[in-house]
Amino acid sequence: MRIAVLGCGTVGSALVGILQDRAEDLAVQSGARLEVGGIAVQNPTRQRAAHIPAELVTTGAAELVVDPSIDVVVELIGGVEATVALVRSALEGGKPVVTANKALLASPEGVTLRALAKKQGVDLLYEAAVAGAIPLVRALRESLTGERIERVMGIVNGTTNFILTKMSEQGADYADALAEAQSLGLAERDPTADVEGFDAAAKAAILAGVAFGYDVAGDDVMREGISGIRAVDVEFAERFGYAVKLLAVVERTGDDAISVRVHPAMVPTSHPLAGVRNAFNAVFIEGQAAGELMLYGQGAGGLPTASAVVGDLIDVVRNLLAGTTAPSPDRRPARLLPESELYARYYISLQVIDRPGVLASVASVFGDNNVSIRSMEQEDGLDDARLTFVTHLAREGDVRSTLAALEQLGSVGRIAGVMRIVEDGGS
Amino acid sequence: MRIAVLGCGTVGSALVGILQDRAEDLAVQSGARLEVGGIAVQNPTRQRAAHIPAELVTTGAAELVVDPSIDVVVELIGGVEATVALVRSALEGGKPVVTANKALLASPEGVTLRALAKKQGVDLLYEAAVAGAIPLVRALRESLTGERIERVMGIVNGTTNFILTKMSEQGADYADALAEAQSLGLAERDPTADVEGFDAAAKAAILAGVAFGYDVAGDDVMREGISGIRAVDVEFAERFGYAVKLLAVVERTGDDAISVRVHPAMVPTSHPLAGVRNAFNAVFIEGQAAGELMLYGQGAGGLPTASAVVGDLIDVVRNLLAGTTAPSPDRRPARLLPESELYARYYISLQVIDRPGVLASVASVFGDNNVSIRSMEQEDGLDDARLTFVTHLAREGDVRSTLAALEQLGSVGRIAGVMRIVEDGGS
Repeated sequence: MRIAVLGCGTVGSALVGILQDRAEDLAVQSGARLEVGGIAVQNPTRQRAAHIPAELVTTGAAELVVDPSIDVVVELIGGVEATVALVRSALEGGKPVVTANKALLASPEGVTLRALAKKQGVDLLYEAAVAGAIPLVRALRESLTGERIERVMGIVNGTTNFILTKMSEQGADYADALAEAQSLGLAERDPTADVEGFDAAAKAAILAGVAFGYDVAGDDVMREGISGIRAVDVEFAERFGYAVKLLAVVERTGDDAISVRVHPAMVPTSHPLAGVRNAFNAVFIEGQAAGELMLYGQGAGGLPTASAVVGDLIDVVRNLLAGTTAPSPDRRPARLLPESELYARYYISLQVIDRPGVLASVASVFGDNNVSIRSMEQEDGLDDARLTFVTHLAREGDVRSTLAALEQLGSVGRIAGVMRIVEDGGS
Repeated sequence: MRIAVLGCGTVGSALVGILQDRAEDLAVQSGARLEVGGIAVQNPTRQRAAHIPAELVTTGAAELVVDPSIDVVVELIGGVEATVALVRSALEGGKPVVTANKALLASPEGVTLRALAKKQGVDLLYEAAVAGAIPLVRALRESLTGERIERVMGIVNGTTNFILTKMSEQGADYADALAEAQSLGLAERDPTADVEGFDAAAKAAILAGVAFGYDVAGDDVMREGISGIRAVDVEFAERFGYAVKLLAVVERTGDDAISVRVHPAMVPTSHPLAGVRNAFNAVFIEGQAAGELMLYGQGAGGLPTASAVVGDLIDVVRNLLAGTTAPSPDRRPARLLPESELYARYYISLQVIDRPGVLASVASVFGDNNVSIRSMEQEDGLDDARLTFVTHLAREGDVRSTLAALEQLGSVGRIAGVMRIVEDGGS
């Protein structure tokens, strides 16, 4: 089986290494020798690792994909524009494709490509696109296919989890934790895609498809990042037994209705997701029969991502040899629950002028908007005070009206922090 | 597709319920309607749940299995003697078998049955036999098949994990925690199979096969239970940042050599396994490329176990329709590393006579046997003292000689606690 590898960055290079080092075992497992037939790159003059055979490197990705000697295409370039035509051309030529490209899969083009693969009767597999090495996509597609899944809740972005871990364990500010992540190569110079939740939103969209069978575009995912989280929010959370995590959530909210969202949340420390530290990923799944499941592992990095690609490659080759494909059930368009209809408990932190009667006026705003307060804590500063509220279960629409009304209140200096609270699990 | 369900206890009854309630979805997922063709029971007069159709209940398991109208056999009876002939007869008739029977799979008969299934070209699937609802077996068999796995370390017995959780969180004695587990139906009246590690040992043997490709019998697994663990051991562990867990470990120790064992261990609280509470199961996998992975979920119970059976059933039916089977690589006999050759750090707690010079004589016994001490703590009682040692990495053979020599020492009242310490992970 001759494999075209498109892209030779960290993952591509690690993949070629695994295919060389473990050739014997992989041949046994897949039923055929896996041979790299070509490696498409953008810059042919760039220095590459010693194990990359120079004679296989080409800039002609489009030609490589249609080369009749190529049996399987692995797309590791990333992005939508640069890849959609290549993947389409491979599928049209009847060649299975393995990709780690979450942006492509969560784009409208991704929906079309999945449909094309199905029509052509070839595999389009993407275990590496969500949560790296964690065997999540296959678990959802195969092991749990008989399961009625109620909710999937995941830490699917290692960069933000690293930043939040540093803020928690070292009491670091957001800016310092981000700088540390950047210095370690865990965050980009422009960290927007990670810290504002775009990366996690694409993964949430893919999970909505795999776990629930709904086509959702990454752009339609409700999204909130972590850049507004302060050290005091994390410290408050810890004091009350919570860890702050950026969660991608896909949740069944009725017949053919789901909520797909990304936002920071306070997770009880007894919940398995709370213990996921540093750049690790984990996805917590709640099924009707299976109960609570969690899959944990490395969400990024060359070798872990390449490991997921290898798992897909073996699957593809076995399927080719058996004349079959991985199951690819039909998808329906999702009815997304409007954000305002979501219910959660909330953490709300306000900076207020420190004078008598302020609490009463703030409390009446909550009451007027149907948001019931569960607990309140006041901390006095020099000129102002901090009021921290935890609400009972409240409708997001009501919380928004509350926040809007609070902003109009003369005694409220600013709304300093707002976060959803996840209910306990794991017991 | 007509399914014979052998056994109608908690799992069988839950399975029949799922097949009825989710008939439409399961037909879509598997490609065929899954219909219960017969339910074999031992006692036909026993009262059953209302959803069990009386007309399908039979005492003739052997006849049901060879009934030409039956396409797939699900074995949920348990034990070896009662089941081996039934499973053999199904496989000989060319019928795939799904089983949750860990004892059967870890027995010498299990090896023969796997070989028979392979020869007959039919599936013998057993996701439910290890860690209940957790999609572990398929992850190892398919997603991670290209991975060189170095170690698998699991909490695979919910009863003992519940007991250890109670000892930790409530400071309970072993006996009280066991009594609570029994009163909740989490432990049998005779708890030996759970607390002495026999159940976990069978699962370790199965994991050695699925993760490493070695045939290991449950009886060959080195086994140590939790009945000797005292509240003070757990308390010491916590004070130094460890949780006590009963672990099933399968570890690569050289070419074609593995260590397969079950024993209590002190796990650092930062390790993902440490946070697994109550009756939950989790399996931590270390792979060369994938790095650290963990799969977590419910290890027992009717619905969770039935959920794993349903996943296998869908697999079996898809494979039948496609004329293929799940991959079933050849297995090799394992060379098991002798216990004495294992290396670990150890926790050793001694009751000694409280008089000058005792520590020196005890310490010299460690030294004479090549066991190097990392830290020591002394706590004085009324008539005696407790010495608690943590060693550096030591050979188990040397630790045993140390313990034997300590027992001969007049000043040592008794060796009160000995436990291996797991190194940190998850970062």
